[in-house]
Amino acid sequence: VPDAVVFSGGASGAWKVVRQVAVTGAPLPPVARIEKGGKAVTDAAWVLMGVTSNLRYTTAAEKRILDATPSVLGRPSATRGALIPITKSARWWGLPQDERRAILEEQSRHIAIGSAYLSKVSRQLVHCRDQAGARFDFLTWFEFAPADEPRFDELLAELRASPEWRFVEHEVEIRLDRGT
Amino acid sequence: VPDAVVFSGGASGAWKVVRQVAVTGAPLPPVARIEKGGKAVTDAAWVLMGVTSNLRYTTAAEKRILDATPSVLGRPSATRGALIPITKSARWWGLPQDERRAILEEQSRHIAIGSAYLSKVSRQLVHCRDQAGARFDFLTWFEFAPADEPRFDELLAELRASPEWRFVEHEVEIRLDRGT
Repeated sequence: VPDAVVFSGGASGAWKVVRQVAVTGAPLPPVARIEKGGKAVTDAAWVLMGVTSNLRYTTAAEKRILDATPSVLGRPSATRGALIPITKSARWWGLPQDERRAILEEQSRHIAIGSAYLSKVSRQLVHCRDQAGARFDFLTWFEFAPADEPRFDELLAELRASPEWRFVEHEVEIRLDRGT
Repeated sequence: VPDAVVFSGGASGAWKVVRQVAVTGAPLPPVARIEKGGKAVTDAAWVLMGVTSNLRYTTAAEKRILDATPSVLGRPSATRGALIPITKSARWWGLPQDERRAILEEQSRHIAIGSAYLSKVSRQLVHCRDQAGARFDFLTWFEFAPADEPRFDELLAELRASPEWRFVEHEVEIRLDRGT
């Protein structure tokens, strides 16, 4: 059974918002802090929720590479984070599976690019497209040490320059710090 | 945005329950009628809901075959129906995409088998695995004319005999009639 993952934006929460920008499409109302947990905090200004789920594109060979460097969340050194909610276009979702896979990996190297950064950038993919009324398809979550933030910037730049990102029609970036 | 599809089981609803059996795993509480719509009916004994979603395994070539015989719901002649909620095992969901695809189609011919029956058996696949708290992964829905019920029985028998079905750990079958 998938686990619920809930992001509550508001005045309270373990993560302080350092920067919040609409990369593509509408912004989210600005908040001071974000809490990540299994349920919403009661005084949240907004709540985004989804579930961890099964792999959608990853092959057995790629999974072996990913499993060799497990994404560990909550490392004490990883005091910086990012929450990046994303929605892809109706055209993307209307494509058959093999065409989406070809764009995501053979053309865009999404899995390979992410794998190269795994030891520095931990991440979690939260799915919400199949929840009735969801505003985003995915809530992507990242944690890294302050010294590795330039590596995270590179990772984002590589993915955003890829053919896959032409199908992204809504993207909000929220940079976070739990050090203070 | 995916459309919500809601099945309400209870005393009212357009579809009369002809037979309700637990094929694998726990039964659902027996009901007299089922209503299918965009939201729950107020006096329902139980409600199962999910969303229509994107294709998960179908290739472009297979999609062309499926699109040539669109699944039309609500045909006046299709007075028989079936609601079959299904849950697959944690082992299935832990497999990488290429291994699930190989079991589903190269080994089990799921898409090919379904395509062969499309002109007689209309169907709709409702996804609920990614909804927090869902009891089933899928709510599969079928409509056909009374004379074609033996064809539907064949379709079910073929799928249930396939390697894919070894991963089905919960399956309830509800046969329906809206003729009376």
